[in-house]
Amino acid sequence: MSGTNVGSPPPEARLVTLDGEVRLSSGQSLTSVQVAYETFGELNENKSNAVLICHALSGDSHVTSGASGREGWWEPLVGPGRAIDTDRLHVICSNVLGGCSGTTGPGSIDSATCKRYGRSFPLVTVEDMVDAQIRVLDELGIERLAAVIGGSMGGMQALAWGKRYPHRVASVIADATTPRLAAQAIGFNEVGRQAILEDPAFADGDYYDNAVQPDAGLAIARMIGHITYLSDESMREKFGRRLKDRDDYAFEFVHEFEVETYLAHQGRRFIERFDANTYLYMTKAMDYFDLCGSDASLAEAVAGMPERFLVLSFSSDWLFPTYQARQLVDALLVTGKAVTFAEVPSPYGHDAFLLEVDAQTALIRPFLENSVRANGAQLRGILPSGPLTKAVAS
Amino acid sequence: MSGTNVGSPPPEARLVTLDGEVRLSSGQSLTSVQVAYETFGELNENKSNAVLICHALSGDSHVTSGASGREGWWEPLVGPGRAIDTDRLHVICSNVLGGCSGTTGPGSIDSATCKRYGRSFPLVTVEDMVDAQIRVLDELGIERLAAVIGGSMGGMQALAWGKRYPHRVASVIADATTPRLAAQAIGFNEVGRQAILEDPAFADGDYYDNAVQPDAGLAIARMIGHITYLSDESMREKFGRRLKDRDDYAFEFVHEFEVETYLAHQGRRFIERFDANTYLYMTKAMDYFDLCGSDASLAEAVAGMPERFLVLSFSSDWLFPTYQARQLVDALLVTGKAVTFAEVPSPYGHDAFLLEVDAQTALIRPFLENSVRANGAQLRGILPSGPLTKAVAS
Repeated sequence: MSGTNVGSPPPEARLVTLDGEVRLSSGQSLTSVQVAYETFGELNENKSNAVLICHALSGDSHVTSGASGREGWWEPLVGPGRAIDTDRLHVICSNVLGGCSGTTGPGSIDSATCKRYGRSFPLVTVEDMVDAQIRVLDELGIERLAAVIGGSMGGMQALAWGKRYPHRVASVIADATTPRLAAQAIGFNEVGRQAILEDPAFADGDYYDNAVQPDAGLAIARMIGHITYLSDESMREKFGRRLKDRDDYAFEFVHEFEVETYLAHQGRRFIERFDANTYLYMTKAMDYFDLCGSDASLAEAVAGMPERFLVLSFSSDWLFPTYQARQLVDALLVTGKAVTFAEVPSPYGHDAFLLEVDAQTALIRPFLENSVRANGAQLRGILPSGPLTKAVAS
Repeated sequence: MSGTNVGSPPPEARLVTLDGEVRLSSGQSLTSVQVAYETFGELNENKSNAVLICHALSGDSHVTSGASGREGWWEPLVGPGRAIDTDRLHVICSNVLGGCSGTTGPGSIDSATCKRYGRSFPLVTVEDMVDAQIRVLDELGIERLAAVIGGSMGGMQALAWGKRYPHRVASVIADATTPRLAAQAIGFNEVGRQAILEDPAFADGDYYDNAVQPDAGLAIARMIGHITYLSDESMREKFGRRLKDRDDYAFEFVHEFEVETYLAHQGRRFIERFDANTYLYMTKAMDYFDLCGSDASLAEAVAGMPERFLVLSFSSDWLFPTYQARQLVDALLVTGKAVTFAEVPSPYGHDAFLLEVDAQTALIRPFLENSVRANGAQLRGILPSGPLTKAVAS
């Protein structure tokens, strides 16, 4: 593939190979699953301060710089003295199942065939991602998280965590996310997938050893995605109708508006670091995610989840709009959860969860402090003994 | 190309070949330009009841069924007794310059080379489209339109008409349109273009005689477009998260959500009737359109335009949003025009201008009646004599 590092874990990541099978929602299973993860900050004595951060579509385990000094994808929110304070918390972040940054995914070698999986990799769901994550926590000896937190697809994982493993987590932070995508977002995901699937270089997913890679399709998918991550307002502010390095129209099919140059740049950058197959798998996992599942209502679906929730949305986010966050909040309130909800005013669209530092810090930091306190109390008194993974209900 | 009718005029269309050159905004020019047009309803004695309808990106001259009985693209709004009443008005609609439905465009034969233009076709602007249209009116002997009306890119043409030929038109109906696209809409257009340009079958625009056509790229462009023509709300209503003909997830990369099937269907339908090159040219013309042009302000730009305006926007249209229509309305009011403005409440997004019949009829029908009256008065007293095209200032 184009980017020499695609498929490699970040240099800071540790790798763990999970014992036995990982059974998937589809009914299929994977063996020899490797997970790339990083940790930041120390686990305290009573192990009450562990926080799991779940990344979004294109993220990886490198959520913040830590010892390496290399900037992470949520640097402004995670680190010493920040919203997710690595001086006080033990932060864990792992690359998702199906990913392309160290955790087993379609670009990994299938030990059964000694070839890369490609499209033979089974479809994974958000729940499958979470099931791989809990195995890492078992390895690390973390019985119960103070909080699981994520934005966008990471927020879907946080919700799935709370639903599948309520006794393993004291609180959930669902940031710029939704209990389920609506048709518009599924539509955008599908068009991105079509751009990849229809790229002749995609070669039905078996392109890894080819000279030509499905870069064109992946770049187009990323460009579509990028527009949906911004807002009309932020794009007007950032680009307006300005031309790039010229005064007049070119009257040719070239990038001339600044917004065109920007999107092309984002497309090029993305193919250097991301795998086209993983893009397909991640978007499908997002489309499939439905917190309601087979339950009759969202309220019923969330009834068994942890008691403490922080739900954040952003006023200009039209991909994960506030009305969807409110549906979640309403369901949580109906079932008597302790919910803090805020719609943060922001012009930055969906990307606001990466950019709005002050407003998020003001809400997340105290919420996590209380989460650690609540978790400590619960760990002292309530948690059942016995093998941890066996206690899991799904 | 895929659709055997792509490049052909509708069977109902009449064809006119324009004398001499058509000079373009780019500085280039075209000769032997053919325009496909249709007319509906009778021109009255004093020629005061002519109305020009300008079509949007994918439209053609067949705006309503007329004598043929074959349904037109704006059938519910145009016809006997309808908003644009062909019992009372003489309606003209022509395929735009650069189009693929009978008017000269990139799929036409260049008489200089006896080959199809392809990418050698010069870029055209909305103003160039209008300049071709006025030549058709000259042929028809129509000195002065009661109104020019259009939605979306058709609305841009209506605005360009008013700006370039204010003495040739009594009033302007700008429907679901904008004085200029913002960055978000340009971004979506650019991604659609990239999908076409990156399709290997596009062959730099010279695909017409090839076995394989750039269908994949054009279909992807159309799918992106379609999402932007709908609204989050209408997509939830129409598709929700329903699966098509199945109860459970397929765990394969197939169309399974109804929205996916719908978008794929729209893509397939489009390649049967539309030309990939024309898609490039039309989107570029929209991106380039800026009513303000070289004027210092929008108010200055509209000062010389006709006196009567009807401006319509739709509450859920996020591609041509109301705030942009309001910018136009504000400029028109500042310069003392008689403006009727309405934001029609609608869940249908940009497509609302094709679907909201009652609300548009209630506004358009009386406006056109008054336009014919005003035009008749002006034709009796005010219009200067002399060669019509020479009287044109640009």
